[in-house]
Amino acid sequence: MKARAAVAWEPAKPLSIEEIDVEGPKEGEVLLKVIASGVCHTDAFTLSGQDPEGAFPCVLGHEGGCEVVECGPGVKDLKPGDHVIPLYIPECGDCEYCRSTKSNLCQSIASTVWTGYMPDGTRRFSHKGKPIFHYMGCSTFSEYTVVPEIALAKINPAAPLDKVCLLGCGITTGIGAVLNTAKVEAGSTVAVFGLGGIGLSVIQGAVMAKAARIIAVDLNPAKFEMARQLGATDCINPKDLTGSVTEAIVEMTRGGVDYSFECIGNVEVMRQALECCRMGWGVSTIIGVAGAGQEIRTRPFQLVTGRTWKGSAFGGVKGRTQLPGYVEQYLAGEIEVDRMVTHTMPLEDINRAFDLMHSGESIRSVILF
Amino acid sequence: MKARAAVAWEPAKPLSIEEIDVEGPKEGEVLLKVIASGVCHTDAFTLSGQDPEGAFPCVLGHEGGCEVVECGPGVKDLKPGDHVIPLYIPECGDCEYCRSTKSNLCQSIASTVWTGYMPDGTRRFSHKGKPIFHYMGCSTFSEYTVVPEIALAKINPAAPLDKVCLLGCGITTGIGAVLNTAKVEAGSTVAVFGLGGIGLSVIQGAVMAKAARIIAVDLNPAKFEMARQLGATDCINPKDLTGSVTEAIVEMTRGGVDYSFECIGNVEVMRQALECCRMGWGVSTIIGVAGAGQEIRTRPFQLVTGRTWKGSAFGGVKGRTQLPGYVEQYLAGEIEVDRMVTHTMPLEDINRAFDLMHSGESIRSVILF
Repeated sequence: MKARAAVAWEPAKPLSIEEIDVEGPKEGEVLLKVIASGVCHTDAFTLSGQDPEGAFPCVLGHEGGCEVVECGPGVKDLKPGDHVIPLYIPECGDCEYCRSTKSNLCQSIASTVWTGYMPDGTRRFSHKGKPIFHYMGCSTFSEYTVVPEIALAKINPAAPLDKVCLLGCGITTGIGAVLNTAKVEAGSTVAVFGLGGIGLSVIQGAVMAKAARIIAVDLNPAKFEMARQLGATDCINPKDLTGSVTEAIVEMTRGGVDYSFECIGNVEVMRQALECCRMGWGVSTIIGVAGAGQEIRTRPFQLVTGRTWKGSAFGGVKGRTQLPGYVEQYLAGEIEVDRMVTHTMPLEDINRAFDLMHSGESIRSVILF
Repeated sequence: MKARAAVAWEPAKPLSIEEIDVEGPKEGEVLLKVIASGVCHTDAFTLSGQDPEGAFPCVLGHEGGCEVVECGPGVKDLKPGDHVIPLYIPECGDCEYCRSTKSNLCQSIASTVWTGYMPDGTRRFSHKGKPIFHYMGCSTFSEYTVVPEIALAKINPAAPLDKVCLLGCGITTGIGAVLNTAKVEAGSTVAVFGLGGIGLSVIQGAVMAKAARIIAVDLNPAKFEMARQLGATDCINPKDLTGSVTEAIVEMTRGGVDYSFECIGNVEVMRQALECCRMGWGVSTIIGVAGAGQEIRTRPFQLVTGRTWKGSAFGGVKGRTQLPGYVEQYLAGEIEVDRMVTHTMPLEDINRAFDLMHSGESIRSVILF
């Protein structure tokens, strides 16, 4: 089958719109028509070449809203026409991580997902006979893609795919980090570093958790309006401070916040996020993805005096079990998605989505196929 | 009042036995006769000069078993003859840390305790008119010492002070870190780095928590016998390995331990302790005290994939509320203390206690006054 796709031929170059070949689904796999796909910082990170796991050429994209076209042999719970969101962290239901209530990090196909292959070690994409890598098991920057059933969340068909595609990564990650990973409690103080799609979703999650005070931090003051609309009570631009942002937050909260979240991927900010937490019980959660080889650091005294340093991947959400519920919450008006979609465009304009992200103009661009 | 005391006149020099002057108790303070005192690595750490908060000359010692001699005005719940254990972390009952169930880090007198003064900013020790600093609010290397009532746990007088003095720091810290900070669950796998008094007490705590497997790590194989007696199931000497201790533990547990504890104060070992934890839910707790300015580091990916980095001070135990219960558990045979006391000696021989600690021959030496 032929499909239009945005191919990343090599790092740090614009994507190129090509007609690629997509093989049909094999055992346990599902062929999907991608209706819409968000463009996320993680796509840009891999495209930049800084991601040590990035394999080129590839089809990027991992925030998809899709329709099932064809099911391979052995697919149990999906049929053509179903609406699904692809999951870069699958949920096999059988491995020790799926059986644990403490983790969403299903390992059933981890060795292939993160190297750009399908679970059987082969690929479904090619261009003029040259194979193309998959990306995060999703590759939603293609009209058609192939994903294993265990990596598909079946959702309510009433939900608009051009909106809930964002629940495939950023929004769920932010909300889940608050509710599942940090477990923010009512009345807490919260600091959020970085006001992209994830940071804004952390604000949403903090509001859902009934946090009393939500401090939003970003170098770009254009982000503050949306942050305030979503529930931030204070906005800080580190550029406006004479001292450090850590000192400012400790001072304004008389000792530090109960919970902080790093939504950028900057190891220096990760340290600030930890150190602005309150002694005794402050919990800092890392969500952003740092560049290869970069390390976080702090004095151990920060932890010995009661701070906790955690991290979150996909908000600790088990995709097939929990993501359909997030879609229902969106439909019930409990989760805001629409305002996060600041731009839409056809696949042909996808490089503009990256430009808008880098210039800080967009929260999320959504590609409409 | 005159008292024999071991005075640390300056860093990195042997203690000197002196007859010092001890002033009586002021408002809210209690004069204590020290019956016995453990000698802990933290005393050695401060004596070494590496502790940035160490103030000289001082009377070290913070694992005391004491009898109340005289109560100053305003002391409410103690009377002469009561048996008490001094607390380097007090419990005022009123501050936000005491009111929180999440922390034991009472801040009521923190600004004076850690600078070597009594809460009123003065000192009770002097030698020939020259004032001497207090240490950790305890200074138990003196026949008599003065401690605020809020920093005294009143214990069952049936408990032998020359044993339960060790509950004033090391043993409680180790057990509490397992039960209060990490909250180890039945059936867990646990790794313990460093088999001094705290590490051995972590093993005890892990047994109390019904851990299924307890891996003890030390460079000194002489520690392994006691570790096994207390409940370690595996002992590893990193010197015997061709690869790293992290790799060895990950391999023998097929993915890493559920909980690890660093009981040394070495920032490189803190990293190993974190990285030998299982992805998804491993929790590493730092107990050891690192040298001034030293920093822990790791790749943030370690946390994003589900590991948690914590720390513990005095095992998260609220001293006045909870320590008397630890003493009862000792009396009931549920907490082992006696075997930790490998050496006893009079105050005059206190420098030998430091030598035995540095040579790795002792678990704990107890000074008998």
